Amino acid sequence: MTRKACIIGGGVIGGGWAARFLLNGWNVSVFDPDPEAERKIGEVLANARRSLPALSDVPMPAEGKLSFASSITEAVEGADYIQESVSERLELKHRVFAQIQQASHGVPIGSSTSGFKPSELQENAADPATIFVAHPFNPVYLLPLAEIVPSAKSDAKVIENAKEILREVGMFPLHVRKEIDAHIADRFLEAVWREALWLVKDGIATTEEIDEAIRMGFGLRWGQMGLFETYRVAGGEAGMKHFMAQFGPCLQWPWTKLTDVPEFTEELVDLIAGQSDEQSGQYTIRELERIRDSNLIGFMRALKDRNWGAGKVLLDHDKRRRAAFHEAGETGQGAPMVMAHMQVLPGWIDYNGHMTESRYLFAASETSDAFLRLIGADMDYIANGHSYYTAETHIMHLGEAKLGDRLIGTIQILSSDEKRIHAFIRIQRGDEVVASLEQMFLHVDMKAGRACPAAPEVLAKLAPIAEAHKTLPRPEAAGRYTGERRK
Amino acid sequence: MTRKACIIGGGVIGGGWAARFLLNGWNVSVFDPDPEAERKIGEVLANARRSLPALSDVPMPAEGKLSFASSITEAVEGADYIQESVSERLELKHRVFAQIQQASHGVPIGSSTSGFKPSELQENAADPATIFVAHPFNPVYLLPLAEIVPSAKSDAKVIENAKEILREVGMFPLHVRKEIDAHIADRFLEAVWREALWLVKDGIATTEEIDEAIRMGFGLRWGQMGLFETYRVAGGEAGMKHFMAQFGPCLQWPWTKLTDVPEFTEELVDLIAGQSDEQSGQYTIRELERIRDSNLIGFMRALKDRNWGAGKVLLDHDKRRRAAFHEAGETGQGAPMVMAHMQVLPGWIDYNGHMTESRYLFAASETSDAFLRLIGADMDYIANGHSYYTAETHIMHLGEAKLGDRLIGTIQILSSDEKRIHAFIRIQRGDEVVASLEQMFLHVDMKAGRACPAAPEVLAKLAPIAEAHKTLPRPEAAGRYTGERRK
Repeated sequence: MTRKACIIGGGVIGGGWAARFLLNGWNVSVFDPDPEAERKIGEVLANARRSLPALSDVPMPAEGKLSFASSITEAVEGADYIQESVSERLELKHRVFAQIQQASHGVPIGSSTSGFKPSELQENAADPATIFVAHPFNPVYLLPLAEIVPSAKSDAKVIENAKEILREVGMFPLHVRKEIDAHIADRFLEAVWREALWLVKDGIATTEEIDEAIRMGFGLRWGQMGLFETYRVAGGEAGMKHFMAQFGPCLQWPWTKLTDVPEFTEELVDLIAGQSDEQSGQYTIRELERIRDSNLIGFMRALKDRNWGAGKVLLDHDKRRRAAFHEAGETGQGAPMVMAHMQVLPGWIDYNGHMTESRYLFAASETSDAFLRLIGADMDYIANGHSYYTAETHIMHLGEAKLGDRLIGTIQILSSDEKRIHAFIRIQRGDEVVASLEQMFLHVDMKAGRACPAAPEVLAKLAPIAEAHKTLPRPEAAGRYTGERRK
Repeated sequence: MTRKACIIGGGVIGGGWAARFLLNGWNVSVFDPDPEAERKIGEVLANARRSLPALSDVPMPAEGKLSFASSITEAVEGADYIQESVSERLELKHRVFAQIQQASHGVPIGSSTSGFKPSELQENAADPATIFVAHPFNPVYLLPLAEIVPSAKSDAKVIENAKEILREVGMFPLHVRKEIDAHIADRFLEAVWREALWLVKDGIATTEEIDEAIRMGFGLRWGQMGLFETYRVAGGEAGMKHFMAQFGPCLQWPWTKLTDVPEFTEELVDLIAGQSDEQSGQYTIRELERIRDSNLIGFMRALKDRNWGAGKVLLDHDKRRRAAFHEAGETGQGAPMVMAHMQVLPGWIDYNGHMTESRYLFAASETSDAFLRLIGADMDYIANGHSYYTAETHIMHLGEAKLGDRLIGTIQILSSDEKRIHAFIRIQRGDEVVASLEQMFLHVDMKAGRACPAAPEVLAKLAPIAEAHKTLPRPEAAGRYTGERRK
């Protein structure tokens, strides 16, 4: 059954939460008295629809239903999870929790607060045990981190339930074991912010120079390893102790004098806002958001290729969803077998604005790989020294796939013997074939570097499929050579 | 003429400098009295050879010559650029500069110091004007940032010369206009380090939890936008002033009390080193270095796709080198034309350990795109609504390209008319053809979505090439269909 998330507060953060739940198939009910809330959430959702699917290699579930409630009572009805993202005013948050808990019982209530401790949030609550910090990072629909901070009064079962729910929507819940103002990440952001204000105020660097100093150097490092792992590597074979011995004394160096808080004046605000305009004013905020999201997708895709950090979260999320997908099963009786479901991602687009030609072959590989896994020529089989190699391919480009298109890859076995599989693959958008690929696969002893018969258990799975496919009509394009006139 | 860089100090940083210069075609002379220096630099260089070429879409120049000098005097002889990366001890640096300046005059001398100001480095120097800070970031062969900090005594011409040299080896020299302890970036690193030590010491979070709090959230943001641009976006349409009004007061919040410096005790070192072992101890430092480098390549490639941040630096670097490459020129008289030079990158490898099949088509696209640019069907032509689309392709897989292989793509025009180009592309490793592709390109009116004659100026460039290629032997594989027996 479709589950329901309740989002209280519909700004950039609340909208990001709503988008993440919706695109992961949850129904979402939003409460925000701001008459602009619907428009604002619509804008966040448009960004999320453009970018979140680009991280997935499994088709996204059908989007959930978005509704706007006229009261907190209406919003929380039937909710399995509640997230509060109102302004950072403790008394306002207390009022919201009181209203929520009049209408709902035992449901996890996460707060997006970046500063308050859970024990502060829980003060005077009817049921403090269900209220905790679930602090996300903008853009909420892309970045996996959510700091989960319980207090001593929290119900451990509620916290575990909440963490499991956040994993289901693709997040990385980081359990913060001891409450502290600003949790973990924002303490660092605050420290850097203080230092940056001093540098601008003292005329050492402009906002642009500071941004370059971050993104051309350590910023790149921190997206994939954090502070300590980075320094561990810097320490070399001698490791962390060596690093600390070398750099520890720097703590006493003169720049520690600048740990004061700079005075927050009008002049400082104007100075920074002016420099920021000069640096980024040529882009609208919407443009900057799209640039940011594309870059984040690129980073997270790069990490996904390597099963590392945020990329590991994405792979785990895919695996979870793929399991559900494969339960349906495919027979191949009477029709080519649907082996792959894909979506045209931003990186697949060429300068013509269409899917770049090599991605059609990539889509075919996804299809044939899934088929080979199905007949048992999987990773273990390859690890044992055998694999099917593509010997030859003929591609017909018949249509143009565009960004965001959902594609399927079907396979039809034209013939097979103990060493060869002759297959016809169609890349389709619905029923429309955008490309067809005729391929010859050779079974190879990888060490010897030559063709050899496939294992009996693989052939035993292949044979009945090939037999069933003999009844399928032979594709017109089969046997075609490049440049042959169409019949 | 090949230029020469002199590297004084051959640790991780000095080795990184040496690798960056060498791989960009400079000769490098290293001086380091450590008997292990040659081994250490060899290890850094092995990492750099594995990763730096993966960022380039233009063939790397021939590697420069690496030599080890037995004295500073010998090392600096004939050097066009000198970089000092010895330990952070001011009197040691002063001695090194004195020896350098006894043997060399007017050559830029950059210091890798992370803490000292240029005016401190220049004290008592024979020629203070040529000494400045050139502070890089580990791994030096990948990360583009070098903070260039002159003092009032610096020679502006020397500084500009140094910045130009660093650009030539692919770096981003950030000119820091006002000297300050620790320049810019390390002030932030120091601020975060202080905060992190407190969090570990107080038992709020382990090193691993802190690293996750960074790399799952804001770390990903900072690799592509820095602090201010990120917050500008967070402020929404109301912009930077709104953001500051909202978050400025937080500076006065309780966590600012933690701006003290934690006491640096044995216990703290043990605590952190122990947690770090638990977090990352399953990897050797070499493994972590390779993981880090692969991730950084992924990030920087993602940014390169988008011409943003560090990716823009890479594109500019390619453009500079491509210009030199194209000066040679190609005729196509008597042989297929070499249109593309490529290297098999880590992301091109499949689970068999070979170049993944769709990358052969990608390599062919690189080749045909370069050919189309050559005959004038370039980005401007496409912007005006016309382009060549691939209609059909036949691929023969003949060999296996592996990680790091240098490939070329050649094109032979089989026939052409005003609407069509029938071409034969070979992807070669040296003389060995690893794949051949027969392709049919159709000239298209993109708006109308149908074939139409190419522009006269394009046909005028295409015709003589097609004419010249008529004398070339017709490839055996041309006209082949998939599964046809070899003759």
